[in-house]
Amino acid sequence: MNPTLVPAMPTFQSASAVASAPIAPDLLEVERILNRTFEGYKGRASDLIEHLSHYRGKRLRPILLLLTAQACGGIRPAHHTLAAVVEMIHTATLVHDDVLDEADTRRHVRTINDKWGNKGAILLGDLLFTHAFHLSSTVGDARACEIIGDATNRVCAGELMQICERGNMSLNEEEYYQIIEGKTAALTECACRLGAMYAGADAKVIDAMAEYGRSLGIAFQIADDLLDLLGEEKTTGKTLGTDLEQQKLTLPLIHMLDHVPSERAEELRHILSNGHADKRSLIRPVLEETRSLGYARRKAEELATTARTALQVLPPSATRAILEQLTEWTTRREG
Amino acid sequence: MNPTLVPAMPTFQSASAVASAPIAPDLLEVERILNRTFEGYKGRASDLIEHLSHYRGKRLRPILLLLTAQACGGIRPAHHTLAAVVEMIHTATLVHDDVLDEADTRRHVRTINDKWGNKGAILLGDLLFTHAFHLSSTVGDARACEIIGDATNRVCAGELMQICERGNMSLNEEEYYQIIEGKTAALTECACRLGAMYAGADAKVIDAMAEYGRSLGIAFQIADDLLDLLGEEKTTGKTLGTDLEQQKLTLPLIHMLDHVPSERAEELRHILSNGHADKRSLIRPVLEETRSLGYARRKAEELATTARTALQVLPPSATRAILEQLTEWTTRREG
Repeated sequence: MNPTLVPAMPTFQSASAVASAPIAPDLLEVERILNRTFEGYKGRASDLIEHLSHYRGKRLRPILLLLTAQACGGIRPAHHTLAAVVEMIHTATLVHDDVLDEADTRRHVRTINDKWGNKGAILLGDLLFTHAFHLSSTVGDARACEIIGDATNRVCAGELMQICERGNMSLNEEEYYQIIEGKTAALTECACRLGAMYAGADAKVIDAMAEYGRSLGIAFQIADDLLDLLGEEKTTGKTLGTDLEQQKLTLPLIHMLDHVPSERAEELRHILSNGHADKRSLIRPVLEETRSLGYARRKAEELATTARTALQVLPPSATRAILEQLTEWTTRREG
Repeated sequence: MNPTLVPAMPTFQSASAVASAPIAPDLLEVERILNRTFEGYKGRASDLIEHLSHYRGKRLRPILLLLTAQACGGIRPAHHTLAAVVEMIHTATLVHDDVLDEADTRRHVRTINDKWGNKGAILLGDLLFTHAFHLSSTVGDARACEIIGDATNRVCAGELMQICERGNMSLNEEEYYQIIEGKTAALTECACRLGAMYAGADAKVIDAMAEYGRSLGIAFQIADDLLDLLGEEKTTGKTLGTDLEQQKLTLPLIHMLDHVPSERAEELRHILSNGHADKRSLIRPVLEETRSLGYARRKAEELATTARTALQVLPPSATRAILEQLTEWTTRREG
């Protein structure tokens, strides 16, 4: 393994840069497909679509799909199309999420809903979903459509469950995992499955890659939920504290409520249910006291280990090493 | 042709009943597929899904798909699945439309957004879209996914254009047709194309059926826009006057503004742009004066004729006769 390919990196942003380096021309091809898909739109619709370029994030899902493909036999043209599809679905959910969360900032710029209203944001999200599905059909294989359709069902079901459970201050860990396995892990699992499948991998390898993507996705979401409690808006570039604001219980909060005397738990549930100005600072010392932040971090690390173990089905390679390191960065990122 | 199959009928509701009679067992199979798709949901999510049964309307799109199939060679299992898919996509757009229109009543019951809020309605719509796409992939043929994906792109693009042009009191006929060809005709065209294609029809017949579905869809939407101006809420079962309320120019209004002196047109644009309590009664005499209602009706009838002409590619049959009559009822329906 060439050590210069995988140096030590402290944050996920730089990890993302290094993970994307060996697949840079492929990621460019994915960008070209994304741009080409929305070429025909004019007028105000095209302004909305153009604004999406500011949402450009880590490209985690296309990176996962392409690296998995490379690790399993090589990147083919279908992979570029499918990588664009998973990114498009992810973007659709972000656009609708911002409506649901009434968020005004995403990646340092105004959200679509804040700039053009909820109506524009709802329809733009719909358009992204449908273009993604249409694009997936151009691979010419109904299996891709089925895997993507199934993953997107699970993403939306997870989101719907999350909305339905908003304000439920008795949400348990099992229900929390059910939500994030849908809303986040279904798509990372799907990306890795498609990467392996369209590289010609056998069933055992495909399933192992899917397990890698799934575990990594759950770990990623736990880290995201921790950032929402602890992060700095300046670093993450998005509105934080929204989980508390929107009365969504996440892993550290569930653990905290389980590890204080029942009367105190009731008090805390009351604080979490009401419009306190700064819930983050009120809750923080209790989270330290119950070691709930450490608990959530440990859970994320366990999942990262599961993901790394799944990779052992592959022969050692520089790409496998990057996939391994991605699991570590996922749990330690700052933005 | 058996005359008892196609008696004269005054309204679309009864037309729908007769059009569905020869395919009744197939429509039941479509209902079974629709129910099966959402079986796994529990809790509040399942309440939302259950509420959709009240949205059950004319089933125009599945009826078109199945009748086209029958007229082109016979209904096969793929047709049942695809008929469920087009209905699901249509329902998804209704759920999101009601959020966009802030409508509180649909088919005599409360809308999802009115009962569960916009968030639930947005996610339920997303879930319907993604289940529809997943279901279409189970036919095992990427062509179906591509045709459905393309139609849904056009539906959403039409809806997005409509939102972007809301409040544009200079919208012209061409732009109006662009909007409704997307938001309504793309899906009726797709239904008829799939009906013919999966019955094994040749390219010429498939294209003629697509043309039938497209023209019928446009005629249907013009009739719908007329109902929004002239209908009775009691009969249609939905909130009316929403086009005026939401500042959407439709064909009769565009014609009216084109056929009054420019100063009067400015006055009328002013009325249409503002929150007058009863725009319907204010505008009605002007619509009569400029014969704009008759103009829109004539356009709908011309399109119905185009649709009937397209059907002549088929040999005469009882099913073809029903498809022919559907075009007449489409333009004359009262609800």
